Amino acid sequence: MQKTPDKEWDQIWVGANIATMAAGAGPYGSIENAALAVKGERIAWIGPAEEGRSVAAAQNLPVQDARGLWMTPGLIDCHTHLVYGGNRVEEFEKRLCGVSYEAIARAGGGIQSTVQATRTASREQLHASAAVRAKRLMSEGVTTIEVKSGYGLELAAERRMLEVARDLAAELPVSVKKTFLGLHALPREFAADRQDFVAQVSGPWLESLAAAGLVDAVDAFCENIAFSLPETERLLQAAAQLGLPAHVHAGQLTDMGAAELAAKWGALSADHLEYLSAAGAHSLAAAGTVAVLLPAAYFTLRQTTPPPVGLLREAGAALAIATDCNPGSSPCTSILLALNMACTLFGLTPEEALSGVTRQAARALGALDDIGTLEVGKRADVAFWRIERPAELCYGMGANPCVDVLYRGALRAH
Amino acid sequence: MQKTPDKEWDQIWVGANIATMAAGAGPYGSIENAALAVKGERIAWIGPAEEGRSVAAAQNLPVQDARGLWMTPGLIDCHTHLVYGGNRVEEFEKRLCGVSYEAIARAGGGIQSTVQATRTASREQLHASAAVRAKRLMSEGVTTIEVKSGYGLELAAERRMLEVARDLAAELPVSVKKTFLGLHALPREFAADRQDFVAQVSGPWLESLAAAGLVDAVDAFCENIAFSLPETERLLQAAAQLGLPAHVHAGQLTDMGAAELAAKWGALSADHLEYLSAAGAHSLAAAGTVAVLLPAAYFTLRQTTPPPVGLLREAGAALAIATDCNPGSSPCTSILLALNMACTLFGLTPEEALSGVTRQAARALGALDDIGTLEVGKRADVAFWRIERPAELCYGMGANPCVDVLYRGALRAH
Repeated sequence: MQKTPDKEWDQIWVGANIATMAAGAGPYGSIENAALAVKGERIAWIGPAEEGRSVAAAQNLPVQDARGLWMTPGLIDCHTHLVYGGNRVEEFEKRLCGVSYEAIARAGGGIQSTVQATRTASREQLHASAAVRAKRLMSEGVTTIEVKSGYGLELAAERRMLEVARDLAAELPVSVKKTFLGLHALPREFAADRQDFVAQVSGPWLESLAAAGLVDAVDAFCENIAFSLPETERLLQAAAQLGLPAHVHAGQLTDMGAAELAAKWGALSADHLEYLSAAGAHSLAAAGTVAVLLPAAYFTLRQTTPPPVGLLREAGAALAIATDCNPGSSPCTSILLALNMACTLFGLTPEEALSGVTRQAARALGALDDIGTLEVGKRADVAFWRIERPAELCYGMGANPCVDVLYRGALRAH
Repeated sequence: MQKTPDKEWDQIWVGANIATMAAGAGPYGSIENAALAVKGERIAWIGPAEEGRSVAAAQNLPVQDARGLWMTPGLIDCHTHLVYGGNRVEEFEKRLCGVSYEAIARAGGGIQSTVQATRTASREQLHASAAVRAKRLMSEGVTTIEVKSGYGLELAAERRMLEVARDLAAELPVSVKKTFLGLHALPREFAADRQDFVAQVSGPWLESLAAAGLVDAVDAFCENIAFSLPETERLLQAAAQLGLPAHVHAGQLTDMGAAELAAKWGALSADHLEYLSAAGAHSLAAAGTVAVLLPAAYFTLRQTTPPPVGLLREAGAALAIATDCNPGSSPCTSILLALNMACTLFGLTPEEALSGVTRQAARALGALDDIGTLEVGKRADVAFWRIERPAELCYGMGANPCVDVLYRGALRAH
């Protein structure tokens, strides 16, 4: 049990069950009938309800009754493409009405249509549509969102996407991690010279965006329909020289060895991983690179080969879960649905899934020191749930038992 | 174009696009830049925005601006088990942690655990938990919910379930259709005499519940793990003698000919239908029995053989979609997710899916005269959506673009 602090607390919640999600602290790091105290933006104390009550009384601090609730860390969506122009509803409908992928692509569909819509969207349009999606995530207890660029694919448009991501966090009570996904797709104007594009992205574009404070990490879509291992490595190398961490889209459609490359460069995460060898899983584990699984994309694309969860477990890799929110392969703004799908489609246990949007998602963002578990000293980002056991967060489809969210120690307005 | 009525209107919305979902009226029965007027609980007039504006002005009726919105019929969830005690979260977690179905069943899990929890729950508990689920459905534009009994399996408990279903409609602005699912599972106390159970259900239980006005339709789970064709037929025959319509759980796990049986008795619907022959599809079409597809159950059970949508289309059968909300195989309270899954998993077009929760769902409840499309004379149950095209209702996962709901001509409070 932690000692009571010298300084007074600002707020205390008493009587909830707390899923701290701390490592090695038993299932869900649970403490029943507990109390959590906050000082400023930080968690000041966690302990038994009775002790919390008596210390609060000694401090003349009013106690907030949380009986009947569970508290968890604020959820973390560690892989999204939240900022984009337009949508792909028309394409979704055409496909279901029998129009082929090829015909859609010829008509300017697919990712290039989102690039076009993003380039032509105003900053206000990008911001407003992303804010709607961010609020949906936030309504389910999300307090940190990773947001990738990658639909601009020209410097000004990539910058605008990252600025919009930054501004979301200024407007809304949510943290945003900004990822420069320079190598997402080859824009048409570089069709004849992909090496020049990779050089621009890894050189002046990255330097310019990083200098503006817009890059928390880089990312590349390493896949046979996107960028090769050497192309991806060029960006990873450039990021390393600037001291920036990396994510890698790896093994979504084929096993090219992208996971091994991510591990080689000490990437924070390798994401998707439907196609991954035992060697790849071991290299992720050895490097501490988090395996980020994206079940809503797997679902939407009607994939049939799930990520090798057994191999990843055996290797001891960390597993995270995210929505992959994007207009094409995962128009998903529900992190609880991603939890359900991780269990149902990939066979994760509810505890693994919930760890995947708390502790392991924090690790995937390089932020585990600050967020991801409920422990003294960490940011007071807390979700309150009207549930009877933590697995309920994975079980329901369409339910939202989130009743309150504390962000940096302050209750969000409803 | 409809004529303007003699009597004055009570309310009018102007400027929305209206997906009337009326049959044979082009895609989604759409009217762009339209107006919809209401008199009492009924739709009084639908036509072009300009005409609506001028008639409203002549009536001194204030116009409600609905520009930027789509209006659709209030959605109809035509297959749910919304009322039950307890939940099955613990079982969900155990299975994902590797405990076998057999071990769970031996420990009293599965449907029998819900029967036990439902029998011991108080009326207030049943009502409160069902109301939470009903409100989730309602938040997505649902105005009519079918609710089955079937977790009581003793007369008093079946009656309590149906009374709770009835009372939900008295408390909440939503319509409820009450289905007596007497043949859901064989309760343990009848293990030695299943024919006696079938006789009780089809005889005195049905008569007693029907006499109390608690039975809008009957239902049976016709499956090799549940009830046989002759057992199901006994209930269908008894219902027919009382003039009650029927639904049948058919072809979820095997093709026993349950769809043909449902058609033979002119059932309103045959539900699930993963296992269905061409002959079965044709018999449904010929009888006007609606094929109700339940993609969230298919998803949760990890089934791999989807319903033969192509056969059903060729046969000309009507397709409806529902959540199948229940604690075991479909803990789903999102009708929009069911729409998404119907498209993604079963290949329905968005228009088919949306018809499946409006016009065809009304038909599956024998209520198409009253609800299911936006046409003059029908109940003014209307959902207002902030979307750009109707397919958006099927495309998103976790979004809820419903901004208002009119139920019997009255706007629901938020």
